[in-house]
Amino acid sequence: MNKQDERIIRIAELEIDSTQLAEYRTLLTEEIEASIAMEPGVLMLHAVAERERPERIRILEAYANRQDYEAHIRTSHFLKYKEGTAEMVKALRLVDVDPIALCAKTSHELG
Amino acid sequence: MNKQDERIIRIAELEIDSTQLAEYRTLLTEEIEASIAMEPGVLMLHAVAERERPERIRILEAYANRQDYEAHIRTSHFLKYKEGTAEMVKALRLVDVDPIALCAKTSHELG
Repeated sequence: MNKQDERIIRIAELEIDSTQLAEYRTLLTEEIEASIAMEPGVLMLHAVAERERPERIRILEAYANRQDYEAHIRTSHFLKYKEGTAEMVKALRLVDVDPIALCAKTSHELG
Repeated sequence: MNKQDERIIRIAELEIDSTQLAEYRTLLTEEIEASIAMEPGVLMLHAVAERERPERIRILEAYANRQDYEAHIRTSHFLKYKEGTAEMVKALRLVDVDPIALCAKTSHELG
């Protein structure tokens, strides 16, 4: 198994209490920025909201391997997010996926 | 409106004829690699398949602006994909989304 095969890639589909959406987005953004900055094994966290139903949020997640994922969910920034948003999340569905092609400009080019 | 506000971000949800899935994946991968390599305004194309139902494919797409998107769908590599896969795609749903946080390691770190 090569390194790429060890990756964990997933789509999280969430539905958020619309009265708490602004607070939820703030906590999620903090958690994502901390994870990408501090954890080498958190490769990608792309969170978007459906335009027509902004309380429906999807996150494309990629972790280097199972061990790094398990470490991620024990970090203080993840636990802060998980506990802080527990009452805001009305539904959570995790969809395991396999990559076909993951292609992007570099962060610098993305601006 | 700043540059980031002009971006077009979307999730495409596709269902592919399972008897043609391998060919579809090849054509999609070619199209994605060409678009990211050749078009400055195509920022991100992340295509994944649901593990439990691999004929269900999702693509997180980001374009710099409307003009670059319109140019993208007129390129020869996109038209080759679109025409080549027309008989393979059983369903296509396009979901407009707004970014909350788009964070990833650089391509180099992603390996």
